[in-house]
Amino acid sequence: MTVKLLNARLAPLEIARELAIEFARTAVERDARGGTPKAERDKLRSSGLLALSIPGQFGGLDATWSETFEIVREFARVDSSIAHVFGFHHLMLATVRLFAKPSQWQTWFRLTASKNWFWGNTLNPLDTRTVVRNRDGWREFSGKKSFCSGASDSEMLIASAVDEAAGGKLLIAAIPSKRTGITQHNDWHNMGQRQTDSGSVTFERVRVEESDLLLEPGPLSTPFACLRPLIAQLHFANVFLGIAEGAFEEARKYTLEETRPWFRSTSPHNNQDPYILSHYGDFWVALQSTRLLVERAGAVLDTAWAKGSALTGEERGEVAIAIATAKVSASRNGLELCSKVFEVTGARATHASVALDRHWRNLRTQSLHDPLDYKLQELGDWALNGTPPIPTFYS
Amino acid sequence: MTVKLLNARLAPLEIARELAIEFARTAVERDARGGTPKAERDKLRSSGLLALSIPGQFGGLDATWSETFEIVREFARVDSSIAHVFGFHHLMLATVRLFAKPSQWQTWFRLTASKNWFWGNTLNPLDTRTVVRNRDGWREFSGKKSFCSGASDSEMLIASAVDEAAGGKLLIAAIPSKRTGITQHNDWHNMGQRQTDSGSVTFERVRVEESDLLLEPGPLSTPFACLRPLIAQLHFANVFLGIAEGAFEEARKYTLEETRPWFRSTSPHNNQDPYILSHYGDFWVALQSTRLLVERAGAVLDTAWAKGSALTGEERGEVAIAIATAKVSASRNGLELCSKVFEVTGARATHASVALDRHWRNLRTQSLHDPLDYKLQELGDWALNGTPPIPTFYS
Amino acid sequence: MTVKLLNARLAPLEIARELAIEFARTAVERDARGGTPKAERDKLRSSGLLALSIPGQFGGLDATWSETFEIVREFARVDSSIAHVFGFHHLMLATVRLFAKPSQWQTWFRLTASKNWFWGNTLNPLDTRTVVRNRDGWREFSGKKSFCSGASDSEMLIASAVDEAAGGKLLIAAIPSKRTGITQHNDWHNMGQRQTDSGSVTFERVRVEESDLLLEPGPLSTPFACLRPLIAQLHFANVFLGIAEGAFEEARKYTLEETRPWFRSTSPHNNQDPYILSHYGDFWVALQSTRLLVERAGAVLDTAWAKGSALTGEERGEVAIAIATAKVSASRNGLELCSKVFEVTGARATHASVALDRHWRNLRTQSLHDPLDYKLQELGDWALNGTPPIPTFYS
Amino acid sequence: MTVKLLNARLAPLEIARELAIEFARTAVERDARGGTPKAERDKLRSSGLLALSIPGQFGGLDATWSETFEIVREFARVDSSIAHVFGFHHLMLATVRLFAKPSQWQTWFRLTASKNWFWGNTLNPLDTRTVVRNRDGWREFSGKKSFCSGASDSEMLIASAVDEAAGGKLLIAAIPSKRTGITQHNDWHNMGQRQTDSGSVTFERVRVEESDLLLEPGPLSTPFACLRPLIAQLHFANVFLGIAEGAFEEARKYTLEETRPWFRSTSPHNNQDPYILSHYGDFWVALQSTRLLVERAGAVLDTAWAKGSALTGEERGEVAIAIATAKVSASRNGLELCSKVFEVTGARATHASVALDRHWRNLRTQSLHDPLDYKLQELGDWALNGTPPIPTFYS
Repeated sequence: MTVKLLNARLAPLEIARELAIEFARTAVERDARGGTPKAERDKLRSSGLLALSIPGQFGGLDATWSETFEIVREFARVDSSIAHVFGFHHLMLATVRLFAKPSQWQTWFRLTASKNWFWGNTLNPLDTRTVVRNRDGWREFSGKKSFCSGASDSEMLIASAVDEAAGGKLLIAAIPSKRTGITQHNDWHNMGQRQTDSGSVTFERVRVEESDLLLEPGPLSTPFACLRPLIAQLHFANVFLGIAEGAFEEARKYTLEETRPWFRSTSPHNNQDPYILSHYGDFWVALQSTRLLVERAGAVLDTAWAKGSALTGEERGEVAIAIATAKVSASRNGLELCSKVFEVTGARATHASVALDRHWRNLRTQSLHDPLDYKLQELGDWALNGTPPIPTFYS
Repeated sequence: MTVKLLNARLAPLEIARELAIEFARTAVERDARGGTPKAERDKLRSSGLLALSIPGQFGGLDATWSETFEIVREFARVDSSIAHVFGFHHLMLATVRLFAKPSQWQTWFRLTASKNWFWGNTLNPLDTRTVVRNRDGWREFSGKKSFCSGASDSEMLIASAVDEAAGGKLLIAAIPSKRTGITQHNDWHNMGQRQTDSGSVTFERVRVEESDLLLEPGPLSTPFACLRPLIAQLHFANVFLGIAEGAFEEARKYTLEETRPWFRSTSPHNNQDPYILSHYGDFWVALQSTRLLVERAGAVLDTAWAKGSALTGEERGEVAIAIATAKVSASRNGLELCSKVFEVTGARATHASVALDRHWRNLRTQSLHDPLDYKLQELGDWALNGTPPIPTFYS
Repeated sequence: MTVKLLNARLAPLEIARELAIEFARTAVERDARGGTPKAERDKLRSSGLLALSIPGQFGGLDATWSETFEIVREFARVDSSIAHVFGFHHLMLATVRLFAKPSQWQTWFRLTASKNWFWGNTLNPLDTRTVVRNRDGWREFSGKKSFCSGASDSEMLIASAVDEAAGGKLLIAAIPSKRTGITQHNDWHNMGQRQTDSGSVTFERVRVEESDLLLEPGPLSTPFACLRPLIAQLHFANVFLGIAEGAFEEARKYTLEETRPWFRSTSPHNNQDPYILSHYGDFWVALQSTRLLVERAGAVLDTAWAKGSALTGEERGEVAIAIATAKVSASRNGLELCSKVFEVTGARATHASVALDRHWRNLRTQSLHDPLDYKLQELGDWALNGTPPIPTFYS
Repeated sequence: MTVKLLNARLAPLEIARELAIEFARTAVERDARGGTPKAERDKLRSSGLLALSIPGQFGGLDATWSETFEIVREFARVDSSIAHVFGFHHLMLATVRLFAKPSQWQTWFRLTASKNWFWGNTLNPLDTRTVVRNRDGWREFSGKKSFCSGASDSEMLIASAVDEAAGGKLLIAAIPSKRTGITQHNDWHNMGQRQTDSGSVTFERVRVEESDLLLEPGPLSTPFACLRPLIAQLHFANVFLGIAEGAFEEARKYTLEETRPWFRSTSPHNNQDPYILSHYGDFWVALQSTRLLVERAGAVLDTAWAKGSALTGEERGEVAIAIATAKVSASRNGLELCSKVFEVTGARATHASVALDRHWRNLRTQSLHDPLDYKLQELGDWALNGTPPIPTFYS
């Protein structure tokens, strides 16, 4: 497969499409089951796609963020849990790239590409229960973290802890998932995104070396480093859009193949029923709006990313706005669509085997990562006052 | 308990409230499980509430439709599956009252009240697979029926079959659920309303006597008989409203007891966050609008019901409009609310143990009984042209 | 006409309907012209309806608030400027009733009923430019007031001024419009509500006697006195609803009489076009929702009004919520409808002679009296926390 | 000025911006006045911009459609009447380019560029009152036409007439506006777009030569010729977007410079009020969505235009979908925004001198050119069935 990748620029997307077809076959069943999609994660490992966003010089596939997110979307259409952990894996790689020294991230990039490491998330900065104790030349992380997407069955973790001695500063480290003292509770049992393993992790006196810490330039330090939360936000927008596209496509097939016109309809087939068409027109406008916003945001991010440390705060602000706009649109339009599709499929599409509700459940769950209301407030501050969002882990 | 009921006019609602508290305790677990809520159905039997809508002279509790639906709503707030089969039980009683001769329905009313019979539905007029064969003085029903809510664990069924010899006329009968040839497949496994047993039933050469048939005045015959589908529609409106009220109440408690303000909020507590308040303001306006429409429709129905066979087609048209208006409002406002509540509870409320998604799943499932678009079309025909809906099993 | 009124309880509404027919004939032309509708105001004077809300014992027509607002709505359907000044006239009467001593308001009531006085508004509490100077036994009002609806061509004014010597306390007085020092600028020239004369008034050392002041119990003093702003708010809800009903009715006639189906429509007449019907269905649900909320709020207010000084703060809170709910619904649904009606009338209905845009302009203008956002916030505080609105001149 | 244009590629937009600043100064006053904006039309003539879309080889400015529409939008922000007749002028040029022989359109292009002709519209294909009489080698057009935007004060007209002898075929001609028998009624007096002169024109036995007729390839003949209605539709989308952008910008200035926070707001300035920010966030997302859709549609049209007669029906279908999507978005988002801006400006912004309502009036008027409902139906047919719109004068 690696050979295939080296031969053709488009190969990653083709590989992703093949994987998506496979994932689709069991997505409904796995949604019901929950837990870790071990087989699928291993397929991602062997596909080479875990090196997707890693530059070629470190053994990666050299994909831009737009290309990376195109594949996130491809997965999200059929399985948004996998899409999420896959995208977050690349976010973790971006985290070390942006917050750590070249000597650190280059090593991690090379190892990830050569060993197909899967990175998981235990960073949640709003959960301050994990704290640092400063030891002699090393640190000790102890406490709990919630919403640790993709931590289960991972090789590496991005972890954070509060350093109370340093005024509550957040320390972030990259550590092997199997390091002594780390317990994955596998306790994610939620209404949606059921195979993201977004449960809790406990750190019990976990030893963290200086070389594990992302200190230079450090979290949210430079404008370039501040792209990290924006990549996360754009990841979400892509997951939401992919979910909506998947729901649309399933509904379309269902309308065409499974439904009959309501007995009061003047149309012999539902595909010409005036109200059915009207709904599809609405879906189309919504999807197309979000698609362009998401694509534009991807292009803007790619440009900013290419600037590296030359990126200014103002430029970073424009990326933030493009991405926030895309995310609000993807969230709202997606939720509306995932609920409305039932109007064009009818009652029989509520059967559990169709699992058409999983799109709404997945999007509803994932869209609560941070509140839409405050994202809109940021956009309003930009639109009214020209003030870009203050960089935080959510903006 | 019967004594209690006889003593106080308000007793049924009190009994229902006590039952609702019990049902609430296991509602989340039973939603996950699906299947027949046998214990809860038996509690309904022993409560006396299965005689709720039966006139006192036949041993019933003499409730008006408004009173009956108040209890449907009470149940729907915590368990919309039970609310549905309970309301449909009373719809089945209304069916025999409206379509059959006094000698028939009075007997069924007396037996239902004295023996706490539970009636189920196998009528679905759009599913024409069950056909009649005319025998010598009796009929034979054979074929399948889908969406047979409450047929499992019932004592009586309302069944329908197409009489092709009579030009496709729909024959409706009231028959014991255990009659030879009837098979309940217990195959309801859907995304919502999971304990309504709305699966399929097979009739295999089931003998139907003339005295089982509802022929005089017959289905949708007189304006009064044409109230039957309107009672069904108002039942749905009440279930939807109850679901939305339940979702609102759970969200309210969650916001107050479980959430913290977003770190960008200027409020020390979420109960004063400007956006949280704004959402609750929206919820309130939506709920209050629907409540008044539903109550008004109930009052209009009560008046029409009291007129009995004196009801004119025009008056029946006005009932139809009041009920259609209420149903559209309940469906739209309810779906919106059940999806939006998550904005005021946040990500942690997606945990499966909260099961806050079940309200959306239940309402989404039940609201597909007949298309909203065609209900709106009817209302438009009334608003623009003054034309009342043509009576059908859905209007 | 007075004889007629005494003869029949329903007479006021009949009189209003006759007046509305007259007002309708010139409403479009007068909307274009702006200024004071002197002829129409004089017709209101001679109709006896300026005594509508005055109790019979003082020579009035003894109407409840529900009855009064029914007539406001009747006018608003064809001419919302007249509806506004007419409703505000009764609000001014309520103001003296609620804030002043019986010896004061009884006199004013008798004079108003016998002389057909028209009361105007110069109270605007947010415009603090008019101040009080305390003289020997009397006061002097000096300064400007904006948004003085109905002040032109009035016999009496409710005026307010800030008493800086008393810590910025708002003093309210009832004074003859022609008193020395009062100048009406007749400078209202706005996009809507063009004949409400809501321009500015200057007070130049206007002498105000103690007997002119509304001091006992005083503004917003008791729960009963605090009904005053709620009457204002419900007045707005009724104006908005009336406007929307008027727009609906004009659109309906236009669709039926003036439009042809779009060339892609499958319907021979627009009255059966599926999308036209769908819009009318939407209009109906919106209007009916608002109608019930407005009627319910009126009934709740009537009950509270009847309690007089026995009204508790809690009861007053419930009135506030019922009215705020109605107003939010009337504002939102009305604005939406007044803009959407064009979808069912088409391009030719934009002709100035149709003036179908005046409904949106009128509603948009009037609905800005106080912000919808903060009304929703109040409702949210009630829905979430059970906290009733704090009485102010806007809540 | 021509020199300036030749010197710099960006000059047309700069010129347009200067003109827009001038137009803005009198836009409010001219909206009130209505009639023909003679001075402004003459400024357009002398600016050289009437040759904007004409290829350089014929003396034009060689602008693409995207560039042409950028200038339409620039005008629409301050004066959507001028934007409309300016854009329609270029649509008339496209009409001869697409429907007539090179020998015809090249002449018209050269004359237009050299003499700064202004073209007007008398084509309205749905108004079939103008008919053709076939004479000996020429034709005679007689009858009326409505909605003749820009016909007043024009040098050339695109006119249509029904040839009943040829089975109701529509004949289209380009004729001098001053030709004998043509009467412009200057009777446009509508609620919006008040200076577009979209009134009626009478043709009284107007002589039309063969060389005036657009017969080769003829109307809607080839896929390329079928771009004509799409250019019209995209013109509308640009006008709508420009109007919304203008409304947004005026509102923004008003909020910042003229408003104070509501007395219940926790913000010292309205520019930080949470609800004001939320509205601006909504406006931004809506505008940005529409902007991208409109830009994308322009790019797609440019590509198709460049293909000329090589354009396939399928490719034309994709242009149609991109443009329809943009138009639906521009219409809906624009109307919503133009009504909602008042929530962020408050009551004082309803003063006639602000004329903030003109944006809604203009957009509402222009958006009725053809029904949104049927545009959505087309999009639905594409989204559900993959069927592109059938080319008509509206699709």
